[in-house]
Amino acid sequence: MRIVVLAGGIGGARFLLGLKSAAPEADITVIGNTGDDIHLFGLKVCPDLDTVMYTLGGGIHEEQGWGRAGETFAVKSELAVYGVGPEWFGLGDRDFATHIVRTQMIGAGYPLSAITEALCARWQPGVRLLPMTDDRVETHVLIDDPDADGGRKAVHFQEYWVRLRASVPAHAVVPVGAEQSKPAPGVLEAIAAADVVLFPPSNPVVSIGTILAVPGIREAIADAGVPVVGLSPIVGDAPVRGMADKVLAAVGVESTAAAVAAHYGSGLLDGWLVDTVDAGSTAEVEAAGIRCRAVPLMMTDTATTAQMAAEALTLAEEVRA
Amino acid sequence: MRIVVLAGGIGGARFLLGLKSAAPEADITVIGNTGDDIHLFGLKVCPDLDTVMYTLGGGIHEEQGWGRAGETFAVKSELAVYGVGPEWFGLGDRDFATHIVRTQMIGAGYPLSAITEALCARWQPGVRLLPMTDDRVETHVLIDDPDADGGRKAVHFQEYWVRLRASVPAHAVVPVGAEQSKPAPGVLEAIAAADVVLFPPSNPVVSIGTILAVPGIREAIADAGVPVVGLSPIVGDAPVRGMADKVLAAVGVESTAAAVAAHYGSGLLDGWLVDTVDAGSTAEVEAAGIRCRAVPLMMTDTATTAQMAAEALTLAEEVRA
Repeated sequence: MRIVVLAGGIGGARFLLGLKSAAPEADITVIGNTGDDIHLFGLKVCPDLDTVMYTLGGGIHEEQGWGRAGETFAVKSELAVYGVGPEWFGLGDRDFATHIVRTQMIGAGYPLSAITEALCARWQPGVRLLPMTDDRVETHVLIDDPDADGGRKAVHFQEYWVRLRASVPAHAVVPVGAEQSKPAPGVLEAIAAADVVLFPPSNPVVSIGTILAVPGIREAIADAGVPVVGLSPIVGDAPVRGMADKVLAAVGVESTAAAVAAHYGSGLLDGWLVDTVDAGSTAEVEAAGIRCRAVPLMMTDTATTAQMAAEALTLAEEVRA
Repeated sequence: MRIVVLAGGIGGARFLLGLKSAAPEADITVIGNTGDDIHLFGLKVCPDLDTVMYTLGGGIHEEQGWGRAGETFAVKSELAVYGVGPEWFGLGDRDFATHIVRTQMIGAGYPLSAITEALCARWQPGVRLLPMTDDRVETHVLIDDPDADGGRKAVHFQEYWVRLRASVPAHAVVPVGAEQSKPAPGVLEAIAAADVVLFPPSNPVVSIGTILAVPGIREAIADAGVPVVGLSPIVGDAPVRGMADKVLAAVGVESTAAAVAAHYGSGLLDGWLVDTVDAGSTAEVEAAGIRCRAVPLMMTDTATTAQMAAEALTLAEEVRA
């Protein structure tokens, strides 16, 4: 079975661990979000791709969900002594090596997709990991500008998310450069060849939404003629983790499992899993033309997550039948 | 008193510690060798400038003579796991931060002289440290090519020095790019304003020789009309440290204190200090038109090195008088 998964960072990566466990024989292609990529200290950092790569490759800091296990911070400390920031982005020494290799390869002319493949040759994630695009796309968030009366300013997604902890209202989320971007080599081919497409409980705006903003990807998924099944990142009326509610508000979507399904829409989504606490909303989702089931959606460990992934594949088969 | 010092790495840096101690009120400008600069992992590494900066700024690994004290090697280990080399160049985590800052500033368009000034703002070396040039000059060494019968190949100086430990014959030493290079801003001005110019016991070929290969610097020193005094890096018939004898052979110079003085020549050099074990050669040096004294030249500690620097300044005053 060929499965295509659109993934952001922590949520997508943890879901993929479960999916690999639930479908060990499956041929899995992951289309990773690169809208939160950022240049720090002159180095190209790809937080979501790396989180997937480190998680599936066994190098992730498990409790934290991002960054490397056993990490040290000598480089970052030294940069701070030089007065070179930002200090709010936690790059460890091991992680720095990844960004140094990537940046060196970019300087040598390799596209991000080839670089990601090279990095994965070490990590052996057990999936084919593709960036959504080789072009530069950068998610910016429009916030109030305290220095301009009534004015607003755009900040990089990482500044909004990591430095500001999403503590100020997001008025808009803009994937700068997306309109001009092309899917990375292999992306459209993987979708066209897929037996099923899954949306893990990743952020529907800044992760999956950004991937879908690359021209051609949304259309390819809608036209693939295979079941497209998603898992709600909202349980009750709060995100399972992260701050998805903050950016959902920016695009005018309520923080409920049903509202996120409607946001994707029945033109894209065939099936939707909500948590058992949201069982009352399945009728609303189904009324919108999306097959819906309520199952436990808390990714507490790999076994539980594997069960979620299995439920998603079961729902896909129901859709297909 | 305004003193200009041409410096390579370890020998130059240690001499400068002594000079600062011997002449605490002096205004010292250091013209640093950049011919051994190298790009590693996409980062610009300036070993000699950094050795001077770390040594005078109190951050040097004292026993080793280069690199940072209290260093760790997480980044290098990770790069090796990625299969990215070279592994023979020992960059530590703290040292990486310096190269990351430098490379980021190069990317932002700053010349090396401005970057060196910015880095020194942290290290406060107590001297004005200038790269010999802002242009790219790279010292290459011509060696036998074991893969080509009777053929030769050029390798980067660091490959010859660090990887090969100067264990193969050097047929030529070529400062690639030197002919087209210009002295960095401030270099010629500092020489013109100097009261004395000193050549520490740095490598006469790949350190001081490379600096003198930048068009205009040798001429400025010769024309400055102030005493130019050097200290022999050869004691007995061996280099005090390093492998200066290997590259002296490449330029056809004997490994003796007198031969190095003759190599600089009386057109450039006014005074020369040899070690007491070479007292027998002072007559030969003086016969070549260079005033010569025999004094202890082993830089065993700062007090001893300060005494050497004081002797050099005394010899400069003799020359002036």
